[in-house]
Amino acid sequence: MTATRTETDSFGPLEVPSHKYWGAQTQRSIMNFPIGWEKQPVAIVRALGVIKKACAIRNKATGKLDAQLADAIVQAATEVIDGKFDDNFPLVVWQTGSGTQSNMNANEVIANRAIEILGGVIGSKKPVHPNDHCNMGQSSNDTFPTAMHIAAGTSVRDVLLPGLEKLLAGLEQKSEEFKDIIKIGRTHTQDATPLTLGQEFSGYAHQIRQGIARVKATLPGIYELAQGGTAVGTGLNTEKGWAEAVAANIAEITGLPFVTAPNKFEALAAHDAMVFMSGALATVAGSCYKIANDIRLLGSGPRSGLGELILPENEPGSSIMPGKVNPTQAEALTQVAAHVMGNDAAIKFAGSQGHFELNVYNPMMAYNLLQSIQLLGDAADSFTERMLLGIEANGPRIEKLMKESLMLVTALAPTIGYDNATKVAKTAHKNGTTLKEEAIALGFVDAATFDAVVRPELMIGPED
Amino acid sequence: MTATRTETDSFGPLEVPSHKYWGAQTQRSIMNFPIGWEKQPVAIVRALGVIKKACAIRNKATGKLDAQLADAIVQAATEVIDGKFDDNFPLVVWQTGSGTQSNMNANEVIANRAIEILGGVIGSKKPVHPNDHCNMGQSSNDTFPTAMHIAAGTSVRDVLLPGLEKLLAGLEQKSEEFKDIIKIGRTHTQDATPLTLGQEFSGYAHQIRQGIARVKATLPGIYELAQGGTAVGTGLNTEKGWAEAVAANIAEITGLPFVTAPNKFEALAAHDAMVFMSGALATVAGSCYKIANDIRLLGSGPRSGLGELILPENEPGSSIMPGKVNPTQAEALTQVAAHVMGNDAAIKFAGSQGHFELNVYNPMMAYNLLQSIQLLGDAADSFTERMLLGIEANGPRIEKLMKESLMLVTALAPTIGYDNATKVAKTAHKNGTTLKEEAIALGFVDAATFDAVVRPELMIGPED
Amino acid sequence: MTATRTETDSFGPLEVPSHKYWGAQTQRSIMNFPIGWEKQPVAIVRALGVIKKACAIRNKATGKLDAQLADAIVQAATEVIDGKFDDNFPLVVWQTGSGTQSNMNANEVIANRAIEILGGVIGSKKPVHPNDHCNMGQSSNDTFPTAMHIAAGTSVRDVLLPGLEKLLAGLEQKSEEFKDIIKIGRTHTQDATPLTLGQEFSGYAHQIRQGIARVKATLPGIYELAQGGTAVGTGLNTEKGWAEAVAANIAEITGLPFVTAPNKFEALAAHDAMVFMSGALATVAGSCYKIANDIRLLGSGPRSGLGELILPENEPGSSIMPGKVNPTQAEALTQVAAHVMGNDAAIKFAGSQGHFELNVYNPMMAYNLLQSIQLLGDAADSFTERMLLGIEANGPRIEKLMKESLMLVTALAPTIGYDNATKVAKTAHKNGTTLKEEAIALGFVDAATFDAVVRPELMIGPED
Amino acid sequence: MTATRTETDSFGPLEVPSHKYWGAQTQRSIMNFPIGWEKQPVAIVRALGVIKKACAIRNKATGKLDAQLADAIVQAATEVIDGKFDDNFPLVVWQTGSGTQSNMNANEVIANRAIEILGGVIGSKKPVHPNDHCNMGQSSNDTFPTAMHIAAGTSVRDVLLPGLEKLLAGLEQKSEEFKDIIKIGRTHTQDATPLTLGQEFSGYAHQIRQGIARVKATLPGIYELAQGGTAVGTGLNTEKGWAEAVAANIAEITGLPFVTAPNKFEALAAHDAMVFMSGALATVAGSCYKIANDIRLLGSGPRSGLGELILPENEPGSSIMPGKVNPTQAEALTQVAAHVMGNDAAIKFAGSQGHFELNVYNPMMAYNLLQSIQLLGDAADSFTERMLLGIEANGPRIEKLMKESLMLVTALAPTIGYDNATKVAKTAHKNGTTLKEEAIALGFVDAATFDAVVRPELMIGPED
Repeated sequence: MTATRTETDSFGPLEVPSHKYWGAQTQRSIMNFPIGWEKQPVAIVRALGVIKKACAIRNKATGKLDAQLADAIVQAATEVIDGKFDDNFPLVVWQTGSGTQSNMNANEVIANRAIEILGGVIGSKKPVHPNDHCNMGQSSNDTFPTAMHIAAGTSVRDVLLPGLEKLLAGLEQKSEEFKDIIKIGRTHTQDATPLTLGQEFSGYAHQIRQGIARVKATLPGIYELAQGGTAVGTGLNTEKGWAEAVAANIAEITGLPFVTAPNKFEALAAHDAMVFMSGALATVAGSCYKIANDIRLLGSGPRSGLGELILPENEPGSSIMPGKVNPTQAEALTQVAAHVMGNDAAIKFAGSQGHFELNVYNPMMAYNLLQSIQLLGDAADSFTERMLLGIEANGPRIEKLMKESLMLVTALAPTIGYDNATKVAKTAHKNGTTLKEEAIALGFVDAATFDAVVRPELMIGPED
Repeated sequence: MTATRTETDSFGPLEVPSHKYWGAQTQRSIMNFPIGWEKQPVAIVRALGVIKKACAIRNKATGKLDAQLADAIVQAATEVIDGKFDDNFPLVVWQTGSGTQSNMNANEVIANRAIEILGGVIGSKKPVHPNDHCNMGQSSNDTFPTAMHIAAGTSVRDVLLPGLEKLLAGLEQKSEEFKDIIKIGRTHTQDATPLTLGQEFSGYAHQIRQGIARVKATLPGIYELAQGGTAVGTGLNTEKGWAEAVAANIAEITGLPFVTAPNKFEALAAHDAMVFMSGALATVAGSCYKIANDIRLLGSGPRSGLGELILPENEPGSSIMPGKVNPTQAEALTQVAAHVMGNDAAIKFAGSQGHFELNVYNPMMAYNLLQSIQLLGDAADSFTERMLLGIEANGPRIEKLMKESLMLVTALAPTIGYDNATKVAKTAHKNGTTLKEEAIALGFVDAATFDAVVRPELMIGPED
Repeated sequence: MTATRTETDSFGPLEVPSHKYWGAQTQRSIMNFPIGWEKQPVAIVRALGVIKKACAIRNKATGKLDAQLADAIVQAATEVIDGKFDDNFPLVVWQTGSGTQSNMNANEVIANRAIEILGGVIGSKKPVHPNDHCNMGQSSNDTFPTAMHIAAGTSVRDVLLPGLEKLLAGLEQKSEEFKDIIKIGRTHTQDATPLTLGQEFSGYAHQIRQGIARVKATLPGIYELAQGGTAVGTGLNTEKGWAEAVAANIAEITGLPFVTAPNKFEALAAHDAMVFMSGALATVAGSCYKIANDIRLLGSGPRSGLGELILPENEPGSSIMPGKVNPTQAEALTQVAAHVMGNDAAIKFAGSQGHFELNVYNPMMAYNLLQSIQLLGDAADSFTERMLLGIEANGPRIEKLMKESLMLVTALAPTIGYDNATKVAKTAHKNGTTLKEEAIALGFVDAATFDAVVRPELMIGPED
Repeated sequence: MTATRTETDSFGPLEVPSHKYWGAQTQRSIMNFPIGWEKQPVAIVRALGVIKKACAIRNKATGKLDAQLADAIVQAATEVIDGKFDDNFPLVVWQTGSGTQSNMNANEVIANRAIEILGGVIGSKKPVHPNDHCNMGQSSNDTFPTAMHIAAGTSVRDVLLPGLEKLLAGLEQKSEEFKDIIKIGRTHTQDATPLTLGQEFSGYAHQIRQGIARVKATLPGIYELAQGGTAVGTGLNTEKGWAEAVAANIAEITGLPFVTAPNKFEALAAHDAMVFMSGALATVAGSCYKIANDIRLLGSGPRSGLGELILPENEPGSSIMPGKVNPTQAEALTQVAAHVMGNDAAIKFAGSQGHFELNVYNPMMAYNLLQSIQLLGDAADSFTERMLLGIEANGPRIEKLMKESLMLVTALAPTIGYDNATKVAKTAHKNGTTLKEEAIALGFVDAATFDAVVRPELMIGPED
């Protein structure tokens, strides 16, 4: 049996586990929302710590909040930021749509910890009150969206961008490494004119390079914070300068260029900045999908596939087929990509569903966005580390396929015309012969001309 | 420092925590997939236990598996089913797309536990080998899809249907309770002709009634099991009758009417049964969305909204606005609904992406589907319990709004024609007067006729 | 300059082209909604004709509508059903969300045509009034949803099911034709154990067979009609028996088993039956995607792809590469599949957005659903006709790939154990040798045993 | 019977209608793709004209193309740009995924028209050949993606941005007009603290302002053109400088800052720029949804809704309810928004599905993106014109609701504390009294203090 203490909110007293810092509103939320297994992400918890700290600093500076109380709140909030209270945030995603209960969870934990620091009785709300002091100048309606933006901004910086930049560097490295390997191109999955394997990887690299730029293009909106809008966007119960000062404090604490949102009504009633970012994430997911899918197909085999790439072997691939090796990192990445597409659909739906002064899909939107950020970052890192960097080109196989290709005939078209070139290719295909044999047999070119014109190494770029 | 023992797979030896039962392939997967925070759902873990037990029973019966080994495997698998080894399944969703590593996780845990039961040395693979014995007659390619179906079937029975049936019963109860309250109808969000509040709730009830039927209509496909297809659907390394017998064992263990899938190639290469079920879940989610959204709007206020319903008060609603109460259960349910729509998009995408003999989006599809099942079931239950059953009609308010409505004029149309009725309504609207005043003033009816025709209690159904 | 006549509605007079039968409300809608290029689908137009006819028959039978007027309306409505007035329905999808203006379009065209039949003055509303007579007992709120269901039901019967059944028959035919061709299986895109090409196609066939069953499983909901609910679901301005009689008339006119919906409140405020059907369509789309994608990959080449299938050549494939042939029918089908997934997302979103007594996403939901039905039916037909039926197996290529496969080693595992079998496969892969060579060299089996055990023709099914 | 002439491609001769300019490949595509009713958008047709013109200019300049032929091609292509041949582009969206047949349609029409200009025999391919001359230096694989970008760029400029800017201006105008009207705020759909109606509209305006910025942020990627990549991205059959020159010509013809894509492999194999733009469009759609939904709810009534806004009346609203007026423009806009979300899902799916050197979802992606652009632009324009600009505030109603609100108590919280303020609000709610009465009765403040503190006009912004 867990020891408990009594905590109180306006609905009455409740028993709370003694070893936890949360109060009655948190406990009530545990009881009222037995839904699913998805807890508020840690990034949200810590972002709430950031906000409580930033606000206490401001409230101390203006004298609205007693300095001693402010200092205790700052210390407690810093501990939340440092992860010391992660296990004091038990609430699930599927709660009030404003995230009020998670905001109160932060207020209650910080208040009780601050009371403890100041030698008071936990649960007494004295000398630190969760609403009057920890939440001073704040509403959940501006606080939770601010936490969403802080969590997104820091997660993009700390997880997503490092993952994508590692993937980009890996693709660029392979593009350089493979720059002299001429291979057959494939369009419509069918044989086409040649390119270098390096060129092929350069396309992948460019997708990710652009993807990084796209994610970054959505950051300015994320850097705009709702804090200071309070209940409905007007800033009631704050003073002029409050929003700007708190945003500056948050910027300093996080090291990211957060600013106050130019229009707080929009910042509470809509989460378009997150929707837009989600679109960029889904675009990157699509890019990753294409790249990983190509690589597993190019590496298919070992004997009956395309076999142009030799993929690293990381683990036994099958519980029944001995010796089987599978492109598992590509599978993890493509699964992540498909999942991110689903998250994007959920975010877009929810983002459109605000009513009047508030969008009440906060925890759900934050959960989806932060999950997309984390998964793409992690999977890009793992894919690069455990698959991409270990890929080798199967030189002999690549050369064989390239040389047999009928689409080298394209180089002949400017010389003999599209219609005649078509005849050459079709005849060689029908007869199982070479282009050269048929081009000569059909009387369109002589051998010397053929050899001069149909040169794969001249087909991989525009004419000089 | 955690004590470890050495386990081995075809890639070599690895150190595994001594107090865990898993082996080298599980450990290797932990190392190879540091992606995200989403673990394999417990429903999958236990379903794998069901399969291992069902197969060992069959293999013992045919004499392929030594009886003593089989009994130990059955005992160990039963412990997995009972949840005793939930903490021995550490793998994330984002692994090999066949779920091979989670299948091996089950094989390894059960093998080591069976070895322990038989007095052997854990990690020795003797006398019970994870592949040769626990996985006998199985491939991950048929096992994991089977686990997905078992997990979906049991979760629908144990979580989703109870939740939806509770919601349906609650809506029916309210429909009956409100059957004599005549209220204004609203179409296009604008005033329309009257209906009873009970009729309005009967529409909600019918949505959920149909939703339950739709989910059930997708169950037959879920009850078809891939087991017996082994690697590519042919059933290699099984014997005739194997698939049927194992399905029968699974049916007996779970109490659900599982059967063997009529075509194993389809069962491995596609997960259309799950995609179809996801569509039914998303349909139910849409229904829940509509219902919860209506209820929060009808209950909006307390003083400046529509105010027809009085919603239960469960917790303080605001960290800044004292005394505020919010429709938080409706918010949880609509957030869940939006999330389920996203899951559906992810599932549909992944379901289309099989290649040749296998779809490698297994863990990701299972995660999304099982999450949708859990969330809808939980949220329907909580919404019913904490919101729906406590709703009261605001009688005086409802009556006032109904009586003032200009759309009662519709009852006049058959008598005076649509065009004249339009004039009555428009004039009353313009003048802020009553329909009766204007109908008489315009000379279309006398007072007695008006009173005889425009009677809300006669407008709530077809003429006798 | 087009000649015009004056038509009038409650907002005043408007000029309408003389050679068109529509009236003021249609004309007003043209002016008020200059949005996009998507017209109401023809299937909706004709379904409105069905409804007007069915209602006039009923209203004549009860004597509510003068027999002469009723007969003229029936004649005019029959002409709409027969497609004679398709060019009199100019309205776009993006209009009032109830489809009121398209319902009035039908009322106006039929009223004017009936007036013409009866020798009256078009535009006079005498002796046939669009509202009082053509719309008698009807509201757009029940009529348009009824039209949506009629259009969906007839389009499924006339376009979708024939297309899917043709595809199914084609797949079954190919499965039979290819039943003795043993080929390498592929899981994770990598070489796996063998199966027959016929088995592979049997999986495709089963996907479509199930898909047809799934679509049919959603039809009962579509066969339930909202007609009789009138404005808000109560049936105001109808009489008892009306709804049932009209549904029976509609069933007779269309030859489909339409019935009246058991709950009209649900039938107006939600379109869950369409949402559920859309989920089935998206499931079928996913199946088509998988099949078409496999076929283009299996038919990739002609020289540098997997090359197991020889695909029909229908047209020149490239404007630059002479002789190129592409799997264009697979591309059309996969494009359709992707589009249907998008339609499904739109339908699911809209389906959840009803308010109170009405969902006002009617034209948009109908457009998306009917488009999905049409595209899947057409594309399945075209794909079957122009690609599937012409596919040939590349026998020599298939046999070569199968025989070289290292995954035949799986047949050895029950004899020598999984771990030893792994060694054989890995060594052969490393050395570029055969399984037999290495199995013997490693001392696990002798040649005779190997030959007895590793027999592809015994690997394509469970042991007898 | 239509008169025909014989045209030929590498598959043989075909009869083509004499009065049409297209050739055999177009005719063959008509026969091969009887799928759906969706034609290639006009914007694509004209963009193909732009490309053919730009390339002919370049080819003339380098002397590769005879000047006389080039001039005829330029003239014919200019006629395509001017819309003179819109009816010569009969192909549907659901064709080869590269758009090859539509590219050939352009080549054939322009070749035949150029032949006509030069006095040749239409269909003779002399002196102008559709491939050798019109398509010189081009492949469908770079041409169609280029057409997609040109069509998107011009449609954004000509349709979308004007529509959104009109909507923004309208919202700003209303925000200014309503700036002194204090109203009740609503969060969670429940009564909250006050704001001005102008502030509420300023939030809407800011959503659209940001939306415009987001769309513009995606344009740089759209301005990058694939042209010059030819078949697989290498630029085979072009010369150095070709890509840059053609892009410059396109920029001049269209007046938009098109440039050559930095990586042609990416430009052919992926359409991430379009995917990213689609995400921005879906974000804007979500904004429009929220705004239109709020407005219809705030304008709900006329007697039984929130009734704060008086919406313009544009047409009769109901075929059964006389005098009913509905927010139809809001319905059109929200239907468009839902549809755009579906298009976004389809685009994201397709964008991820490229294989190797080519993504073959071109026509389908273009159709969806261009439809989204057109619909959002048109609907924003119509909504602004016919609804937004005519909205009036219902002053008396707004004031009444605001003054009765219990959430004015929030202003008391800093004075008497959150817990006491809660008691005031709850007691007033329970007793149906005013905040002032209860605040005094409970002894928390005197009347003078209450009046000094609870002043709505001071609650609409931070304290000075």
